Amino acid sequence: MEDFIFQSATKIIFGKGAERNVGKEVKKYSSKILLHYGHGSIKKYGLYKRIVKSLKEEEIEIIELSEVQENPVLSMVKKGIKICKQEKINFILAVGGGSVIDSAKAIAIGVKIKGDIWDCIVKKVKISSALPVGVVVTVPASGSEASDATVITNEEKLIKKGYHSDAIRPKFSILNPELTYSLNSYQTACGASDIMSHVMERYFTNTKNVDLSDRLCEATLKTVIENTPLVLDKPNDYNGRAEIMWAATIAHNGLLGMGRIEDWGSHKLGHEIGAMYDIAHGATISVIFPAWMKYVYKKNVGRFKQFAVRVFDIDAFSISQEIAAIRGIEELKNFYRKIGMPVSLKDLGISDERIDEMSAKCTAWGPVGNFVKLYKEDVRKVFELAR
Amino acid sequence: MEDFIFQSATKIIFGKGAERNVGKEVKKYSSKILLHYGHGSIKKYGLYKRIVKSLKEEEIEIIELSEVQENPVLSMVKKGIKICKQEKINFILAVGGGSVIDSAKAIAIGVKIKGDIWDCIVKKVKISSALPVGVVVTVPASGSEASDATVITNEEKLIKKGYHSDAIRPKFSILNPELTYSLNSYQTACGASDIMSHVMERYFTNTKNVDLSDRLCEATLKTVIENTPLVLDKPNDYNGRAEIMWAATIAHNGLLGMGRIEDWGSHKLGHEIGAMYDIAHGATISVIFPAWMKYVYKKNVGRFKQFAVRVFDIDAFSISQEIAAIRGIEELKNFYRKIGMPVSLKDLGISDERIDEMSAKCTAWGPVGNFVKLYKEDVRKVFELAR
Repeated sequence: MEDFIFQSATKIIFGKGAERNVGKEVKKYSSKILLHYGHGSIKKYGLYKRIVKSLKEEEIEIIELSEVQENPVLSMVKKGIKICKQEKINFILAVGGGSVIDSAKAIAIGVKIKGDIWDCIVKKVKISSALPVGVVVTVPASGSEASDATVITNEEKLIKKGYHSDAIRPKFSILNPELTYSLNSYQTACGASDIMSHVMERYFTNTKNVDLSDRLCEATLKTVIENTPLVLDKPNDYNGRAEIMWAATIAHNGLLGMGRIEDWGSHKLGHEIGAMYDIAHGATISVIFPAWMKYVYKKNVGRFKQFAVRVFDIDAFSISQEIAAIRGIEELKNFYRKIGMPVSLKDLGISDERIDEMSAKCTAWGPVGNFVKLYKEDVRKVFELAR
Repeated sequence: MEDFIFQSATKIIFGKGAERNVGKEVKKYSSKILLHYGHGSIKKYGLYKRIVKSLKEEEIEIIELSEVQENPVLSMVKKGIKICKQEKINFILAVGGGSVIDSAKAIAIGVKIKGDIWDCIVKKVKISSALPVGVVVTVPASGSEASDATVITNEEKLIKKGYHSDAIRPKFSILNPELTYSLNSYQTACGASDIMSHVMERYFTNTKNVDLSDRLCEATLKTVIENTPLVLDKPNDYNGRAEIMWAATIAHNGLLGMGRIEDWGSHKLGHEIGAMYDIAHGATISVIFPAWMKYVYKKNVGRFKQFAVRVFDIDAFSISQEIAAIRGIEELKNFYRKIGMPVSLKDLGISDERIDEMSAKCTAWGPVGNFVKLYKEDVRKVFELAR
């Protein structure tokens, strides 16, 4: 086990109708806020009204910034920073999924720094503070509601970059599973794929003696694998939605990676697809992850066998470690197919003509991943395995 | 799943030699502290020296209060409160196991309230603040290093009472597994028993649809069950000690109980034995828990079967739910025996003559437990099953 520091201080408020008290939580921080959201789907089912009502009850002044898009873009972040500075806003309430939360976090950084926000993200400039951010989650997927991360796309340069700091962990996050009833099958499945990837990026490690975190990872994966088909079948199943929503948070609040060297290579490859083609993150991951696994499993066959046995209940009694490992990868792929996720670039409608370009961009800052370090040629081979 | 609020904000600093930087962490809060510890075992292996050195480097003034005993007592808490008030101390550093941490937490409350600390604990008076507490853990067991709880014994009245408040969660806890090498077999096994009990008190619930937290509980139990025999065999096994130390924190920082109605009946019964006979908490638990399980398992045989199958790998294919459930209880008892823990009052050298008295005191504030509510007669029967 590696040494570590763990502090995930976000207050999680979980349950039915939890958003009705958002005003009281916000009021602890500010009386004038930026309300940040996406394309107005929050207006469809009354969520917007309930939130504004709760904020008004606490006499909180609201400045709105909506139209955050999937794979949130730098221009929106800059717009948010400008508004917050002009209006002297000192709290951001993000209502939405990972894109909205990530956009809010980037704005929260930008308001506090002097230089350019993109420079800060690219150069991984250390920050000591950011505006406080609160969240009402509508899509369980990114785990951004309790994570220290934001991922922003520079739409001019077609570059998608992640940034980490404890300063951007949300102060509170409201998780009401009922708010996820309206997600369609594709959104639900993309979310499941995203959640699982956050666990697997931590699970596939070369760090030895990580029994507890291995088992916590497996627990989270099994929960998502069992509950996703249930909610695809019955979208209004509170219990299934609740399991997935809580799993999304646990998967990415840092806990599952403690004491382990994490990988994150597959995310980098997925981000290249996302930046180039504007495809949902979860769909890029279901394409890349099995390909990545096939490319790297020989580095530690035992770990892949453990994954197969403990996560997919593969009976490894009478087969070799390697066959068990491969079956685990196949089972994961089958699971993605079962929930309607793409498992190849072809499924995404992407030809292989830009693989070279994506491989170059993916490794422009050096090799990616830790379980196996992937250089440009490796990345190309993973993309090719994903064709 | 039940609605819940979760916020466990303690900063965990985990790893080899981590205590060498305790001064820097303390300095963020205060330059004059109460250093609280037990009977000087921290002086045996140089820990005391390293801590004082680190504190001195940061020019922190130290007032010491040692001699905290197992099952920490009210008179010591009152002494600590008096010293803190007199000396205008505003930070407590607890170096030790659960007893020392719990004593520090109670002092931290007492300094901030006007009335009597025992009244506050017994009447569960809500507090809004407490002195900040930092911890260097030497015994992985209580989980007090990241919990919202303290348990204090009124040695005059022979009453042991628990108290909960988010205000007493430690600000930081330093966990260096090396510090636990010197624990003897009995201390190590008592710790394992205590950790497991914190998980099981949450596991045995009537709340339905708690897939993720069920699995997180099982993950933690399996980790303790696998690693305890390893460290009993090789006390200086860093990895085994690390797994147990991290499991102790996860078991009791609140995470595993989210969305579930917890039980805690067995703890109440164990506290009666602890208060009456001054026996280590972990040893009272290994006696009570199997007896409690036998008394209540019929309330939800399926859950006890799940425990048997997932935690002790019982093959339940060709046996009834009930037989599987009973085997799980027997396996737990066998595990306690294997690690040298008592499993009966007889093992503890306690006759049954005070069972009636303990049963009455245990239920003096009403029935205990939630999985099954235990009234005086039930408690007596559990004690009798534990003879």
